[in-house]
Parts: sequence; C-alpha cells; structure tokens
Amino acid sequence: MKTKGKIIINDVGPRDGLQNQKKHLSVDERVALINALVAAGLPAIEVGAFVSPKAVPAMAGTDEVIHQLEAKDKVAYSVLIPNERGFSTGVELNVPLMSLVVAASTTMNEKNIRMTTNQALSMSSDVLALATQLNRRVQAYVATAWECPFEGHISVDEVIKVSAALLDAGAAHIVVADTIGAASPDQVHVLMSKMVSEFGANKLSCHFHDTRAMGVANVYAAIEAGIRQFDASIAGLGGCPFAPGATGNVATEDVVLLVEQMGYSTGIDMGLLLAASDKAKALTGTARGGHAKTWLEQQENKRGSK
Amino acid sequence: MKTKGKIIINDVGPRDGLQNQKKHLSVDERVALINALVAAGLPAIEVGAFVSPKAVPAMAGTDEVIHQLEAKDKVAYSVLIPNERGFSTGVELNVPLMSLVVAASTTMNEKNIRMTTNQALSMSSDVLALATQLNRRVQAYVATAWECPFEGHISVDEVIKVSAALLDAGAAHIVVADTIGAASPDQVHVLMSKMVSEFGANKLSCHFHDTRAMGVANVYAAIEAGIRQFDASIAGLGGCPFAPGATGNVATEDVVLLVEQMGYSTGIDMGLLLAASDKAKALTGTARGGHAKTWLEQQENKRGSK
Repeated sequence: MKTKGKIIINDVGPRDGLQNQKKHLSVDERVALINALVAAGLPAIEVGAFVSPKAVPAMAGTDEVIHQLEAKDKVAYSVLIPNERGFSTGVELNVPLMSLVVAASTTMNEKNIRMTTNQALSMSSDVLALATQLNRRVQAYVATAWECPFEGHISVDEVIKVSAALLDAGAAHIVVADTIGAASPDQVHVLMSKMVSEFGANKLSCHFHDTRAMGVANVYAAIEAGIRQFDASIAGLGGCPFAPGATGNVATEDVVLLVEQMGYSTGIDMGLLLAASDKAKALTGTARGGHAKTWLEQQENKRGSK
Repeated sequence: MKTKGKIIINDVGPRDGLQNQKKHLSVDERVALINALVAAGLPAIEVGAFVSPKAVPAMAGTDEVIHQLEAKDKVAYSVLIPNERGFSTGVELNVPLMSLVVAASTTMNEKNIRMTTNQALSMSSDVLALATQLNRRVQAYVATAWECPFEGHISVDEVIKVSAALLDAGAAHIVVADTIGAASPDQVHVLMSKMVSEFGANKLSCHFHDTRAMGVANVYAAIEAGIRQFDASIAGLGGCPFAPGATGNVATEDVVLLVEQMGYSTGIDMGLLLAASDKAKALTGTARGGHAKTWLEQQENKRGSK
C-alpha cells in the first residue's frame, strides 16, 4: 500500500522510560527489552546514558548494554551524554548517535545541570565542536520547550534561539522536548510550524509526555506542522526525575497506531510491538501500556485466530 | 481572563457511560452522579434513555430520574429516544431536549434498530415533524460517522446526506458520533471542516470514544475545524453495547483540560469535576478516570494546600 511517506519513531523506553522507575533493571533485562524493540522493527532506540551511576543508578552499566547490542547496522542506537566526558565514553564505545540536553529555561538548566542556559550552550558547543572534528553524530534535546515547571511558559523565540545555537555549533538534529508533558496541541502547532520554517523538518523531531493526556494530540499537531520524527516510549514508560509532575512518555503503541492510520509507514510490526510492551510491563511491573492497549490486543487476537 | 470563547460540553456519562456497565446503578445513584456533574458546572447532561428496560436494563427508570432532576433552568438535560413512543414519553415528562440516533451506515442501522438508513430517516422525520408541530427540541446523532464495525469506512458524502436530511426534517442540532472510537484526527478534520462549511458550526457537535487513544486528538482536530460543542463522559465511562470494540468515551476531565488550556472557557470547576469523577468510579467500580487524572489530582492538591 502506498503511504504518505515515512515517520521515524525513536523508542526512548530503555533510557527515558527506565530512568525514572523505582525498580532498576539489570543489564540483561535492559538488553532483552531493547531486543524486543529491535524485533518489532523500531528504526531508532535510545539505549542508555553515560551519567553518574550514583545520580542515575538505573542507567549504570550502559557500556555493557552497548557491548551486547545486535543489528547495529539496522538500528540508530543513541545514548544520552551530559558532557564531554560522556562524549568521550561514547567515542570509545563507538556509539553511533549521542544526545546532549539543553533546557530552553535557565532555571531548569540550573536545577538539572547547575548551569545557566548560556553556560549549557557553551559546554554543548565545545562537545559539538569536538564531535565535528572527530566526525561523530551528536544531536541536541531542547528540553522544557513549551513550559518549565519553575519558570512557566517558554517563548517560541527562546526555543528558536537555543536551537539555532546548537545547530550552528554542529548538532546533527534537534529534538524539541515537552519534558513535563505540559504542552497543548495548539501550542505544539505554533512552535513546530515556526521551527520547521526556520530549520526544515528533517533537522527536527518531537518528544512528548502524556501527563495531561495530550500526548497523542501533540504528535498529531506536530505532524500537521510538518514533523516526521518522534520519540515515544514502549508501554508509556517514563518520566523525568528532575521535573516535578512529569509522568509517562507518550506510548509507542499509541503513536504507531495514530501515524499508520493517518497513512504514514513506520516499518513497525504491531503484534511484535505489543509483545515488547508486555515485556516492558513484565520487567518493570509498572508500565501501563498504551491507552489503546485493549483495542490493539483485540485486533491482534482476531488476526491471530484467522 | 478573556478567553477565545465558550466550548459547551455535554456529559453523556449518565446515559452513554452507564448503559454499557455490567453493574446497573439505582435511580438514586444515577441522580447523585447527575447532581455531581451539575455541581461541577456542566452546562448539558444526557440523563437517560426512553428505551425498553428489557433491552437496556441500565436505563430503566429514566422517568424517575427526570422527576428528581434539579436546576432545570440552568442545565440542558437530554434523553435518548429510539422512536415516536420515546418522544411521546419525553413530551409527557417535559424533557427539554431529546436525541434521535441514525447511523450513517445501513448495516449499523439494521443491526441496531432493524431498519435501513432510509427507513431510519423516514421514522426520524416523522418524529421531527411532530416535534416541530409541538414546538419541542429534538436533536439527531449521526452514528458511525467515520467507520462502521460492519461496513468499514463511511464516506463524507454519506454523512452530509444523512445530516442534511435530519436538519431539513427539523432536527435542532446534529451530533456527529464516532460510535466505535475508530476515527483519527486527520479524518475528523476532513469531515468536520466540510460539515461546518455545509451547515455552520452552531448546528453541530462531536462525540468521540477513546478506543484507539485518539479521543483528545480528535477533539482538538474538531476544534481546529470550528466545532465548539462536544460530548464527553465523566471518568471516561462508556461504550456502545451494539458496537463490537467500542470502549470508553473520551473523558470529560481530559476534554475540559484540553479546551481550557487552549484558551476556551467551559464554566466547569475542575476540582468539583474530579469529585464527580471519583463518584462515577465509586458508583460503578470500573470507571478509569481521565488519562490526566494523576496530574489533575496533584494540581488540585496543590491548590487545596495553599
């Protein structure tokens, strides 16, 4: 069937999803979850973070996870790095894509990484310069792009300013992140329309949480604005340990269902994606599954019984 | 605060929501739920159905519910009627608004009311003629307006044809219903844009289920198309007993949160709405609450503790 084109989904469950869970999974369990996502056809997966295991114990052993990854020629695996030290680890381990994070809110940067926005941009620029020199792909998350739990509403101009600085410094891609799940679809449409006209859609993706039940609506609004790449989290796992009120990421299952029904192709097999969702639930004990879970399971059962 | 204007929400929990529950509430329990919605400021509530208590036991005693209603001068109470007999009961009981249902799919009409679409339109036209003569307000639901579980995709032309026939016959209003929760927001935008240009937004509202996790996205898409009236169900109660795969209606809490954040006013108090949601859950034992429940409760607790 001819589609409207591709939408690329990056599953952040193994990092953003697991990072905030009370129960910490073992390296083998994390690899098993990643492999379930690979089997389902996810084209991109965030597999860990090179951060202090004391600060974020759930991400300890990311280096071991990297060693065990399969299908490295097929899947865009990425790792979160907080700084140049993380970048060096990524280079050593030959991680194909690394992600820096800068918040569009100075207070959020101060609370999260103890830097002002300008200091964070300066630190990121140093890493990006090094990445350019070493020919490594590093992308940048612009966090709290709509609202900050401390500062409130973030202006479109601020997000564009921070994004432009990161792209100028050599970021391969900008992920515009609604870190605390505060954006509404009209706000998403306004910002992402301006971002697309400023930077082009192929430089951009969006990251939504479902805190206010608007995650799927926000994906739709971003698609209408031209965005064709999204983060999502298997079974809706997730949250942000530093942002009060941030609950689960928008579920991969729900996003795949939306975009496929809209006529885009993702390359993802829904039956195997539901199996990955079940695995996420079994491993963590807390994953809720997508909101469309009951219906999706009915469809798979019908398909299976034919 | 100046808003973009009003959005009217009609809570269908006490009818569409309760109709599909395994546990049948008593008349007093149903009135208690309705009163909780009135207290929260709902401007419109669907309170029952004049249908056979054998076919739909959950709606037995709707006449007693009507007798106990309060604030009749403030709330647009409505009752579902299947036919002229239901209309006569509504006239006797002085119900201010009655709702007929015609599916845009012939197979759905045949399964649901054992008539073809033309027969259903003819029957509805007779009721609407009588309503015009007696100066009574009767609106019409156009069910399965996007997809029918038996026929699949329904054409925009068919929905416009059925709607035009009902408006010509005297329907006060058309409620375009995604009875089985199958529509995606792009499909909603296409149909509702055409409906608005054909009939005007003030003649229209939308009714969505959250089966495929697109309920909130569909409300957003309909707002973008100009719609300003929506059905929603407290705590996401609901479903359709005659449509396989139809799970809960989009939750009133989630819709109010969306439209208020978009800058529209609903006149609804979120704290009291959450109390009504808790009551729905306590009474039925099954209501899930809106997807944004955890976050909304946190906000109310913060507000309460200030």
